[in-house]
Amino acid sequence: VHLIIADAEIELIPDELLKFPAVRATARRRGKKPSECLLDSSLHYSALRHLKDGGRRGRADITHFCLLLALDSIANRKGMLHTFVHTRNDLVMEFSPDVRLPKNYNRFAGLMEDVLVNGGVWSEGRQLISLKKESLKSLLERLGGRAYLLEEDGKQFSSFASLRDATVIIGGFPHGSFISDVGNMCRRISISGEKLMAWSAVSIVLARAFPAKLYF
Amino acid sequence: VHLIIADAEIELIPDELLKFPAVRATARRRGKKPSECLLDSSLHYSALRHLKDGGRRGRADITHFCLLLALDSIANRKGMLHTFVHTRNDLVMEFSPDVRLPKNYNRFAGLMEDVLVNGGVWSEGRQLISLKKESLKSLLERLGGRAYLLEEDGKQFSSFASLRDATVIIGGFPHGSFISDVGNMCRRISISGEKLMAWSAVSIVLARAFPAKLYF
Repeated sequence: VHLIIADAEIELIPDELLKFPAVRATARRRGKKPSECLLDSSLHYSALRHLKDGGRRGRADITHFCLLLALDSIANRKGMLHTFVHTRNDLVMEFSPDVRLPKNYNRFAGLMEDVLVNGGVWSEGRQLISLKKESLKSLLERLGGRAYLLEEDGKQFSSFASLRDATVIIGGFPHGSFISDVGNMCRRISISGEKLMAWSAVSIVLARAFPAKLYF
Repeated sequence: VHLIIADAEIELIPDELLKFPAVRATARRRGKKPSECLLDSSLHYSALRHLKDGGRRGRADITHFCLLLALDSIANRKGMLHTFVHTRNDLVMEFSPDVRLPKNYNRFAGLMEDVLVNGGVWSEGRQLISLKKESLKSLLERLGGRAYLLEEDGKQFSSFASLRDATVIIGGFPHGSFISDVGNMCRRISISGEKLMAWSAVSIVLARAFPAKLYF
């Protein structure tokens, strides 16, 4: 499975907000430049009201959980998973299957800042997280094969085994719709009649797409 | 399913550490008394070295993630899940199925402090999170029925459907063994040959224990 957390609400603080007092205060407290800090809805709530789509932005926590689940999964340990994050600014991060992410949110936010500022993370000459400018559409073209996009009002879907060699796209935002245009490049499916948080969708896909013999 | 996150590493800063400079500094920054702040391994790393089991304590993040998965699950929304957290100090929290927890870790930590300091959380006269002093053993006695405890070297287990009307115990700590004594009150099982993070175990149990028709 190629797993893409797409339109993820992860970004550095955008120019329009750099002068806001709350933004400057939180950056100062961390000893960082505001332009090198992650936008965080729980810290920058008041400033976000002045931003387009402010009600859904600054949610690295959603991607954090999705990644912890994906990278710790048995499928990933067996080399059957390939994990990407695509952000609202059309940046694509690719994660080495053996990268160990911080479990603590504040440390994860620091890691994302490093990736976005430095263009990736390396260890002993090997790249653990890469970053490139790429739209969701071009990422799908690059990966090829069948792609499924999960959304609440997609087509009822239960044949999880067919996800196995495909690309699965899960939205990395709290509510609303995908903002990326993917035209007709993927089937839009729903795995439950209800709205799910992104991590619940990741967890169901991981547990059901792979053969039961992956467990006992 | 009764789900118990057991021996969870959630506690207020213990007396032995209240005088440590790092502990006092983090409390002051948040405008709280040190004794009313949560122990947090990412903030109190140096102080934890002086504490018994210091290498595993202060990990509310693990429980946070397990709870977000459990409470957002379709099983929980259909009233088929009953969620508890049992801590290393033998405190048991019980969560109303419709409680909405903060997604952000720092806010969740604040909520846990409220629960531990005030004995619970109420909203409009109804208790959303309760707290009582109770050992894991007495909780199991109170719940009755079959109980399964997940651990790496438990008996190979794959008949997930039998978890459906039972109690499932998952450790809320990063590594090591359960510290609670449960005698022979539960079957010790392993759902995969490998060590799983607590949230991976929760996610697999939730996705596989319930009938597929819960989804589409």
